[in-house]
Amino acid sequence: MADYQIFSDPKLEADVLDVLKKGVGSHQLIFPEKVASSVLSAGEPDPGFPKADIAFGQPLLESIKVSKKLKWIHLSTAGFTRYDTDEFRQYAKDNNLIVTNSSSVYAEACAEHVFSFMLAQSRRLPYSLSLRVPNGHPEWNALRSSYKPLRGQKVFILGYGGIAKVLVKMLAPFDMEIVAMRRSPRGDEGVEVVTPENMAGALATADHVINILPDNPESSGFFNAERFAAMKPGSVFYNIGRGTTVDQGDLFKALKFGHLEAAWLDVTTPEPLPDGHPLWNLENCHITPHTAGGHANESLTLVKHFLNNFNRYLKGEELVDRVM
Amino acid sequence: MADYQIFSDPKLEADVLDVLKKGVGSHQLIFPEKVASSVLSAGEPDPGFPKADIAFGQPLLESIKVSKKLKWIHLSTAGFTRYDTDEFRQYAKDNNLIVTNSSSVYAEACAEHVFSFMLAQSRRLPYSLSLRVPNGHPEWNALRSSYKPLRGQKVFILGYGGIAKVLVKMLAPFDMEIVAMRRSPRGDEGVEVVTPENMAGALATADHVINILPDNPESSGFFNAERFAAMKPGSVFYNIGRGTTVDQGDLFKALKFGHLEAAWLDVTTPEPLPDGHPLWNLENCHITPHTAGGHANESLTLVKHFLNNFNRYLKGEELVDRVM
Repeated sequence: MADYQIFSDPKLEADVLDVLKKGVGSHQLIFPEKVASSVLSAGEPDPGFPKADIAFGQPLLESIKVSKKLKWIHLSTAGFTRYDTDEFRQYAKDNNLIVTNSSSVYAEACAEHVFSFMLAQSRRLPYSLSLRVPNGHPEWNALRSSYKPLRGQKVFILGYGGIAKVLVKMLAPFDMEIVAMRRSPRGDEGVEVVTPENMAGALATADHVINILPDNPESSGFFNAERFAAMKPGSVFYNIGRGTTVDQGDLFKALKFGHLEAAWLDVTTPEPLPDGHPLWNLENCHITPHTAGGHANESLTLVKHFLNNFNRYLKGEELVDRVM
Repeated sequence: MADYQIFSDPKLEADVLDVLKKGVGSHQLIFPEKVASSVLSAGEPDPGFPKADIAFGQPLLESIKVSKKLKWIHLSTAGFTRYDTDEFRQYAKDNNLIVTNSSSVYAEACAEHVFSFMLAQSRRLPYSLSLRVPNGHPEWNALRSSYKPLRGQKVFILGYGGIAKVLVKMLAPFDMEIVAMRRSPRGDEGVEVVTPENMAGALATADHVINILPDNPESSGFFNAERFAAMKPGSVFYNIGRGTTVDQGDLFKALKFGHLEAAWLDVTTPEPLPDGHPLWNLENCHITPHTAGGHANESLTLVKHFLNNFNRYLKGEELVDRVM
């Protein structure tokens, strides 16, 4: 078997780099001259790239398209907006270019992140952690009676991929009514599935609306004034997909004027929101800085996921998290 | 069947009071002249009490002991410290006095509360919700890599009652290693059980130590310097039992000097802690004001639980949540 040239641009700690080096065996690693600062940022065109058979990380579109050798791209993210265009899909098809992503690496952490949001909402943690009153105080009685346990409530998940699957398992002990939206239902989801065309009922009745939509032309501004107005009064909105899928001005109004009880966002546009952005000033809007997928030993998990796919590639087996 | 006289001192909203009145049918309700301000506070001696066959709420020990008629006390709390003495247990036995509590009413909410703490710790919510940095910023990378997903971690639950049982079900999807401490293991717990005498190993290896101990002479100051020192470095301590079970000065030191990663407390002594108490000033100590058992329609659930037991009492069936 010929040795492969693997272009790798994720920033890796020394011990994780060792795992990658050992893992690829006699195959060659090519590192960029400048390392990207995070898994979410694109690198710069690199003189070493044209030699690569395989690219692990966030290769630039312009570098991919001038490459004569590239056979497989393994993206270091779960999202792949830059590559998710008709034009690029056609390019990949015409050039037998395989594209995989790292969805599995982040799914568990992302699901746990949004689940922590749901429970923090149920137990009103930001407020509960700030209240210092004695038992029996009117504010204490009001807080106690404001908690809404998750059991029996209804959840609507938009975007049924790896994260949703893990989340559904986490929700199982709470006997919640779960509906998911998926463009092309397969029938094996294990929960009720609706398409974008027939989602009105689910949107209007859910207590928790969880947005895991990827960023693409169809999803841009998906959650706008009309969709927020169609949500159940007092429901809660979560976004751990991409910030671009939400009209933030419309979300502000829905939160400010009380139609929604709260929003929990891991993503916004831009990130972070500028100081003074109206969403920062709402007590019922809770924002984490796009860290849902993070977890200890993240880069090690990322490398192991790549190596697992690399071994499958060498054996001609089906790749995990293939998106093109 | 003779009509019963039921002394009822919980403070109830008008609609919930109606449920209670309808629920007892032709039996007589006696209300105190002064209503207690919360389910956790004791009432005052009341002239109507001596007529009661049954007491629902928080009857005073002195009133109970001078009563000639009392047959059954249904407490409106899960804890029952005031009554949990050898002397009172003997009194109840000698006088054929049945004592039930409202453990079931609060178990689901309490379990959800402590589980929200665990997930908030895993996703470092207080810090994550405060951090405003762009992707790739050193603090962002540090936060992402600091998250410790619950999957596979070890939990040690002290006090295996109604709350622990619900919590264990909630934890099931996370494949955690769960050990519970119980004074008298029955063998039907479904998790590994240790006694106070052989708990050292569990305490030394758990990532999460969850204190649900009731307040009694044995548990007073149970978590002291020695026990905190015996916990795994970097582990997290939770208390949703009673504040008296923890030496708060020792907890402060364990948190301040980094032996424990964090503490999440729903109970303290006193409640609330006075302004300026050292625990308020620790970034890794998170406190809610004894609201873990709270939930929407709490008093309705409380009344329904009493009525369920009342109907069992009328039929001579076994009562739920019987403690004496």
